[in-house]
Amino acid sequence: MKIGIIGLGAIGGSFAAGLRAAGYEEIYGVDIDEETVKTAEKSGMIKEGSLSAEGFLPDLDVLLLSLYPSQIAPFIEKYHALFKAGVVITDVTGVKTAIIEQVAEVLPDIADFVFAHPMRGSEKKGIIGADHTRFIGANALITPTSKNKEKNIQLIENLYREIGFTKITRVSPELHDEQIAYVSQLMHALSVAVVNSNQASEDTLTFAGNSFQELTRIADINGELWSELFLNNRSALLKSIEQLETELDKLKQTLKTADEEKLKDLFSKATAQRRHWY
Amino acid sequence: MKIGIIGLGAIGGSFAAGLRAAGYEEIYGVDIDEETVKTAEKSGMIKEGSLSAEGFLPDLDVLLLSLYPSQIAPFIEKYHALFKAGVVITDVTGVKTAIIEQVAEVLPDIADFVFAHPMRGSEKKGIIGADHTRFIGANALITPTSKNKEKNIQLIENLYREIGFTKITRVSPELHDEQIAYVSQLMHALSVAVVNSNQASEDTLTFAGNSFQELTRIADINGELWSELFLNNRSALLKSIEQLETELDKLKQTLKTADEEKLKDLFSKATAQRRHWY
Repeated sequence: MKIGIIGLGAIGGSFAAGLRAAGYEEIYGVDIDEETVKTAEKSGMIKEGSLSAEGFLPDLDVLLLSLYPSQIAPFIEKYHALFKAGVVITDVTGVKTAIIEQVAEVLPDIADFVFAHPMRGSEKKGIIGADHTRFIGANALITPTSKNKEKNIQLIENLYREIGFTKITRVSPELHDEQIAYVSQLMHALSVAVVNSNQASEDTLTFAGNSFQELTRIADINGELWSELFLNNRSALLKSIEQLETELDKLKQTLKTADEEKLKDLFSKATAQRRHWY
Repeated sequence: MKIGIIGLGAIGGSFAAGLRAAGYEEIYGVDIDEETVKTAEKSGMIKEGSLSAEGFLPDLDVLLLSLYPSQIAPFIEKYHALFKAGVVITDVTGVKTAIIEQVAEVLPDIADFVFAHPMRGSEKKGIIGADHTRFIGANALITPTSKNKEKNIQLIENLYREIGFTKITRVSPELHDEQIAYVSQLMHALSVAVVNSNQASEDTLTFAGNSFQELTRIADINGELWSELFLNNRSALLKSIEQLETELDKLKQTLKTADEEKLKDLFSKATAQRRHWY
């Protein structure tokens, strides 16, 4: 099985390295950065690399697009004439409904696109973050469409398992986007909002403890990527922010009325839910 | 120097253990829980313990009240007739303006109250969290009042240094409360609001990654304590929530108008500020 990986950053590079470590020999890598391609070849995480996908595409059985959301459909549109019949394509993007709609417009019948979301990011950008152990113990979400063949979904799931993913869950694209807006995008929105508050100052760290450091960690954000993730999921994220604001309103109301019992009720509810989860 | 510690929970107990470890022999401890007093005595963190402060008070040179905010002024009111002339009193509460006002009503002239905020909490409640190393490397805030004698402020600062605090900063009670509302109380409000959102479900953890786990950690909250902290600082906390909402509104606006450039600007601003801090 010949596998092509388009984009050899921390995620794509970790897929390449993981698949090689799992025994796959024929891994081909493409990146727009020449140094990255050289590094990938030297390290052995790919059999061969290139600055362009064209030469590899006619032979590839599996095509993993480790690209930004905005690059997925354009890639298909540009290269679909070169796809091998029966190619299984997959992505790694953190939004699904919008991407699935965009891809549906341009995907040829000879290709099957299994949309996936490996749930382990990287603090390191670029191939320096490539690590064959990155996905060990990680979770992944697969969002099947009505066009997917079962065997192709299983092929992707098996590749994920072989490089260390432990929990791989199939969900609808709509549920994926709704829940990711809540558990991931909202966290980033809150962290950014906290750091951008006009209360931030030179003196802030004199007062800050662990919780501030933790909560603001993800405000150091890859703006190119996250602006795409936010905008491709904006209705779901708007809903998550509004639900959060509803809860903040409840807290504000208890403060305005000095309602200690109601405030304790809100704390008790949160404590019970958090303990139920973790 | 005879030091009395009222309340032998994780914080009071850690002060007792830390002071003993620093070589102070005459540490006296009071707690309403008999088992706690016995444990404190057995462990050697106090010289002698009691269920009541009365017997110790006439001899104490320093009195550390490791009590909830609502208990501070009532303690002074109840026991002030027993205070030794010149006693230096200090607290450990995370709000200051309201407590200072309450204490001013009842504090006798023979006592000097140096208000302090040791900034290291405990995941463990009760004396089981007492640890003589707890405060090593921790920060503390002192909020002097116009009535404090400089030598008494220094006495408390020195005790803090001797048990491991490294950065001890004097700030006004107003600045303390404003910044604590922002860096600490707002974090707890957001965490509680996230967990209480109606988007929380049985499936949430299928989608959640590190950021969700981190941000919701402090939603497992001591409601008795934090309701007092919130309510004793409610105007400052309301302001912090409103400033946060102003930033959320900016994010929402970029989503509603699909304004990628403005969204990237907000991310860039947050990234620069976060990197400046940490």
